[in-house]
Amino acid sequence: MSTLGIVTPKAMHFASPLALQSGASIADYTLVYETYGTLNADHSNAVLVCHALNASHHVAGIHIDAEGRKTTGWWDNMVGPGKPLDTDHFFVIGVNNLGSCFGSTGPMHNNPATGKPYGASFPVVTVDDWVHAQARLADALGIEQLAAVMGGSLGGMQAMAWSMLYPERIRHCIVVASTPRLSAQNIAFNDVARQAILTDPDYHSGDYYAHGVVPRNGLRVARMVGHITYLSDDDMAEKFGRELRSGAYQFGYGIDFEIESYLRYQGDKFSEYFDANTYLLITKALDYFDPAREYGGDLTRALAGTKADFLLVSFSTDWRFAPERSREMVTALVNNRRRVTYAEIDAPHGHDAFLLDDERYMNVVRSYYHKVRRDLALNAAAARAMTSETA
Amino acid sequence: MSTLGIVTPKAMHFASPLALQSGASIADYTLVYETYGTLNADHSNAVLVCHALNASHHVAGIHIDAEGRKTTGWWDNMVGPGKPLDTDHFFVIGVNNLGSCFGSTGPMHNNPATGKPYGASFPVVTVDDWVHAQARLADALGIEQLAAVMGGSLGGMQAMAWSMLYPERIRHCIVVASTPRLSAQNIAFNDVARQAILTDPDYHSGDYYAHGVVPRNGLRVARMVGHITYLSDDDMAEKFGRELRSGAYQFGYGIDFEIESYLRYQGDKFSEYFDANTYLLITKALDYFDPAREYGGDLTRALAGTKADFLLVSFSTDWRFAPERSREMVTALVNNRRRVTYAEIDAPHGHDAFLLDDERYMNVVRSYYHKVRRDLALNAAAARAMTSETA
Repeated sequence: MSTLGIVTPKAMHFASPLALQSGASIADYTLVYETYGTLNADHSNAVLVCHALNASHHVAGIHIDAEGRKTTGWWDNMVGPGKPLDTDHFFVIGVNNLGSCFGSTGPMHNNPATGKPYGASFPVVTVDDWVHAQARLADALGIEQLAAVMGGSLGGMQAMAWSMLYPERIRHCIVVASTPRLSAQNIAFNDVARQAILTDPDYHSGDYYAHGVVPRNGLRVARMVGHITYLSDDDMAEKFGRELRSGAYQFGYGIDFEIESYLRYQGDKFSEYFDANTYLLITKALDYFDPAREYGGDLTRALAGTKADFLLVSFSTDWRFAPERSREMVTALVNNRRRVTYAEIDAPHGHDAFLLDDERYMNVVRSYYHKVRRDLALNAAAARAMTSETA
Repeated sequence: MSTLGIVTPKAMHFASPLALQSGASIADYTLVYETYGTLNADHSNAVLVCHALNASHHVAGIHIDAEGRKTTGWWDNMVGPGKPLDTDHFFVIGVNNLGSCFGSTGPMHNNPATGKPYGASFPVVTVDDWVHAQARLADALGIEQLAAVMGGSLGGMQAMAWSMLYPERIRHCIVVASTPRLSAQNIAFNDVARQAILTDPDYHSGDYYAHGVVPRNGLRVARMVGHITYLSDDDMAEKFGRELRSGAYQFGYGIDFEIESYLRYQGDKFSEYFDANTYLLITKALDYFDPAREYGGDLTRALAGTKADFLLVSFSTDWRFAPERSREMVTALVNNRRRVTYAEIDAPHGHDAFLLDDERYMNVVRSYYHKVRRDLALNAAAARAMTSETA
């Protein structure tokens, strides 16, 4: 049960163009965001929570849409009063990324240059682009330095990118179930998903909005294949095994096994609310993230300019972004003499574990935020001491 | 280089109906097969090689098609004169399974009852059905008992099924990179592949032959996702890593990474020669194989009636059918006091390793066939002794 109650998204418009990593730029754009808790007097208690592929700015609390449907935030177990990221102490910001389909400017919005939806012409954005856009939002909210940036999976990549792009503006970087780069296998799964969408006749080269259709079949297959990679083999075996829906083989192409029923349902549901162009865009942002690339693959050098303290968390059965990937980051940070806390949680739920309740995981994050609060208090005391010495 | 030279497929027609596990039956059918080596006088040296999802009766040697194209058999490194399965000593049979698309009766052939292609109405066949059809072929070739039945992956399931369905007719059972049942994750990947085909508008409920099209996009995606599961994560990283095809990110939905190029190529190639209805059928045969099912999940009881000796081989990086699955079979066979040889090969190539050259793997199989020959020689000597005693 959410303890934050009803939350309301806000929107901020940015009129100056944003230059993108691709060389393109977005003339002007809107970011939709939510905030929870109260920004303190010295604006030092802000935490930015970055979302993964299919999530949004609606991190916690309950949103009521125009039709009266209630939706609980995707990390409501993590964020709220008394929760590990405690909104009684922190001012938490959730922001929908550029190119996503939950309110911020994206492919389904009109391109001011043409008056028609961007569609596939929406520029391919990267994790770095998102971080620059988020930094502008922080500026607009009067936040010079974030107490922490936190995210899981693709959200963790954004937190990592913050530590490199804005080292002075982030005190703590919390990276959960993430990776410093996608493997060939990760990219392969993403490309299968993209091919399913791109070859769906209803995709219409990305201009399906004008045709009054969506590439539902492609999106459905994309989500099904993605979903398999979020769960562990063991967890699937435990939850579904070879259970038959009707007790006997059907000898046809309908549903035999419970796992088929579950996956198709997930695919159907997803294809009803998610935008196909956004799916393409975001998988590309995942594929492209690779901060070590411009340092000849040397992650230690890539992280040399960071100043934050780090918490990294990985999950034993996550085969999408396995613990080895987190350990690689830990090693690179330790090589740079950064302060790093690392927890490898023995959890059965695969990649999805980062969204689920697990006492040890929640306690690790809770403890870390206690440390963040102590750090902020010490920093404020030091600042006061400086001021009184100066006075 | 093939040492068998040019080989020519044969066809055998079966006029009496075959009752299928589903309750349906096939009125009459043709099996296409190849043989290599010479059947000995007492017909004791025959080895049946069973094929996996996308392969055929063309196990070894070189086939020249009507257009003059040469194709080497899919297990030519394993089967031939002087090879691990040595055709100087054994009479080897490769047979295309019912429902496949390489000559044996399948969905693209006319249903005699309607005069039109079966399409999706071709009955769903199972591993057991294939084995019964193969047994009829052995009958027709005058082979009462097979020296061995051998297969990898889905082919290994057929070898296992032989040992249970025809315990008196198989002396040795060789099961490579296989499993006694698909896991929920295996089924999930198969269902993604099926959904990609079934929702392709060119599928036309399986009657695409009449429309002059094939569901190429669906087949392509199906193959791409399947192919990922055949390779190990490490092998993909080694072969492709994050190599870019043109040295820089393209910021579009064309090909950025070499792995994308490779997978799309594999998908394209496959969609040009493989039949979509066959793909659906064969993935169902995979999903349904579960001999322990009618014994409440007890594999030991399922294997209690077997009489053969067994060789099982698995590969360390095979995450599709992991070594654990082979070990489970070994345990169940040992519980039944069967003679079992088991080799777990440390190989980097994932599931595909069963098709590749690996000295240790080839030597294990070679040694085992030496044992098969000794067994046959002893058996023949015993039979002669019996005869002279009787005389």
